[in-house]
Amino acid sequence: MAESTGAFVAPASLMGTGDLGLIIERATGSVLVINTTQHSVLGRIEGLGDLSHASVVYSRDGRYGYVFGRDGGLSKVDLLTGALVNRVVQSGNSIGGAISQDGRYVAVSNYEPGGVKVFDSETLALVVEVPAVYVGKDGGPERSKTVGLVDAPGNRFIFSLFDAGQIWTLDMAEPTPQIHRLEAGEAPYDALITPDGRYYIAGLFGEDGLSMLDLWHPESGVIEILPGYGKGEQKLPVYKMPHLEGWAVADGRSFFPAVGHHQVLVAAMDDWSLLEKIDVQGQPVFVMASPDNRQIWVSFAHPRNDVIQVIDSETLEVIKTLEPGKAVLHMEFTPRGEEVWVSARDSNRVTVFSTRTLEPVNVLEAEKPSGIFFTSRAQTLGL
Amino acid sequence: MAESTGAFVAPASLMGTGDLGLIIERATGSVLVINTTQHSVLGRIEGLGDLSHASVVYSRDGRYGYVFGRDGGLSKVDLLTGALVNRVVQSGNSIGGAISQDGRYVAVSNYEPGGVKVFDSETLALVVEVPAVYVGKDGGPERSKTVGLVDAPGNRFIFSLFDAGQIWTLDMAEPTPQIHRLEAGEAPYDALITPDGRYYIAGLFGEDGLSMLDLWHPESGVIEILPGYGKGEQKLPVYKMPHLEGWAVADGRSFFPAVGHHQVLVAAMDDWSLLEKIDVQGQPVFVMASPDNRQIWVSFAHPRNDVIQVIDSETLEVIKTLEPGKAVLHMEFTPRGEEVWVSARDSNRVTVFSTRTLEPVNVLEAEKPSGIFFTSRAQTLGL
Repeated sequence: MAESTGAFVAPASLMGTGDLGLIIERATGSVLVINTTQHSVLGRIEGLGDLSHASVVYSRDGRYGYVFGRDGGLSKVDLLTGALVNRVVQSGNSIGGAISQDGRYVAVSNYEPGGVKVFDSETLALVVEVPAVYVGKDGGPERSKTVGLVDAPGNRFIFSLFDAGQIWTLDMAEPTPQIHRLEAGEAPYDALITPDGRYYIAGLFGEDGLSMLDLWHPESGVIEILPGYGKGEQKLPVYKMPHLEGWAVADGRSFFPAVGHHQVLVAAMDDWSLLEKIDVQGQPVFVMASPDNRQIWVSFAHPRNDVIQVIDSETLEVIKTLEPGKAVLHMEFTPRGEEVWVSARDSNRVTVFSTRTLEPVNVLEAEKPSGIFFTSRAQTLGL
Repeated sequence: MAESTGAFVAPASLMGTGDLGLIIERATGSVLVINTTQHSVLGRIEGLGDLSHASVVYSRDGRYGYVFGRDGGLSKVDLLTGALVNRVVQSGNSIGGAISQDGRYVAVSNYEPGGVKVFDSETLALVVEVPAVYVGKDGGPERSKTVGLVDAPGNRFIFSLFDAGQIWTLDMAEPTPQIHRLEAGEAPYDALITPDGRYYIAGLFGEDGLSMLDLWHPESGVIEILPGYGKGEQKLPVYKMPHLEGWAVADGRSFFPAVGHHQVLVAAMDDWSLLEKIDVQGQPVFVMASPDNRQIWVSFAHPRNDVIQVIDSETLEVIKTLEPGKAVLHMEFTPRGEEVWVSARDSNRVTVFSTRTLEPVNVLEAEKPSGIFFTSRAQTLGL
């Protein structure tokens, strides 16, 4: 079933996987395998279905990428051979996935039918299915869309139920997977987990503020943070709801997109007080910190989405405005942060910038590129 | 020149490098190549010289390890083939090394002759030599031992001059490498850099306290922190000076060994005030935080060095005392933190513990094992 094209090296030519990655080509259902040392495209893997809003996690060894498609497809690709190793269409409509801390399980978050399915990362055989069933308004069982699925320490998966307003944890360390259900705010639509895997934070469609769960103390339940944040603050039409995985956590502070404002917000993470509002040129979507926490890179919603702005994390000033092409949204830092790769979807190119000079150092061609995912995610909690 | 033994896979059998690592066998001048998913030894690479106090850094792709020996030897080994690819004896006596943020340069810290040499990571050809020359007490030039060499953002190396009481930065991003010299405290003997690459902290033999350089503000010079810390506080004979790379930074707090006391100290990182002293069973040497910041693992100096203690990072209580064998010093967490590998030198074994259950899950044989280094260091600043 494997389909691949490009200049993959012969099997006899060994290579390490630490500097590889995948770039989603959303319109063609393909991914590019790239090398961040050489700034090269090793080849293209095709036949992955609908890759709008696709994301990727990696096996512990960095060899295999698991690509989550919008159409419920879960594809396992081999970065060393360029082969599509396995593919299951596991639901009608899905949104993101995660790999367990020990690398044994890959989980997918489904809209239809609502719930989470967990697969063996080796074979893609179904290990456990968790239907997102809750008690509906008329007292009978209903099924919720699931969103914001992440991995957490202790071999757990955490996710949110959009329709039920709940956060569930799924513990895969026990012989029989354990589910814990917690009441959360109304209509969680996405979530993030902090880099140490402690705090799970869900954005809410149904009310102001966000829902936060301290995984060190699940017995304390879900609390509300940043009560002024969200829907109620909208002054402009919202062109794209900000992704919560696009929040930056740096130095005890969180940098995140204002909803419906041309601002990046800064909050203290100990008490979630709002410290600062930074004016930017459009409605931010992704707000990412460089690995050294020195820079915050921001991408924007339509119609001002041909621009990236770079903020100095200490002075909180915009130090550079870049124009990498048309329809710019996704960025990925190299793990030690010397460079950042930026997709310009409608320019069919990916630009590599130096974080030191803020100048482009290379450009690669790609077909409607969107998400960029490096194998260093295999070694990072929550990614 | 390559020598290798063991069950290396045939070149045709591809493998990822994300879950590999090296274990130093100090008495035999060899390293074991291991796999952290399978808990297996892939093979042994021999002929690396004197490996007492040896350390390892990795190429960007995770394929090659650079082993720094005590005898000035710099060895490049291939984890995929088990070959010793290259080896230079670049000084008479050296202590540790680092790889640049972009992976192009490997630097070695030398005692004799004192200074730092930088090599091309591909060929091991000498790129630049930095003699550690300073003005001695009689006004003439003298040469210092160098210690505490680390990599920092901006493709810099940072190191300390033991005899000169200075900290130098070496900027490899410019066409001609730039050196900046800063006055520090007396007799720096080792150093660490915080995980974000911002603060460089050197321990001092010659006075109480530590020297700290804020790399975001080198113009502010080196300041003194924790003035009560160090030599002056010794109440017991010091069996082994604690390594500074054995400091744990978790959640805005630093956990580190008291010198000459049976205590682990906890300091706030914003103002370096001492928050707590945790009683432990011996003189701590390595104090390491799990990747999720939930646990602090501590190893000890002779004669109470058959024990590891695990501290809860929230309650600051010792929650478990483990006895993995004789002469236990070195530990390494898997990058997502589900397991930790521990060397017991005089028991000739390495034990793998689960961080969830704190129970051993596997034991591997090794010949006088000491340092353990996983390839995830390739993707981590300062390691």
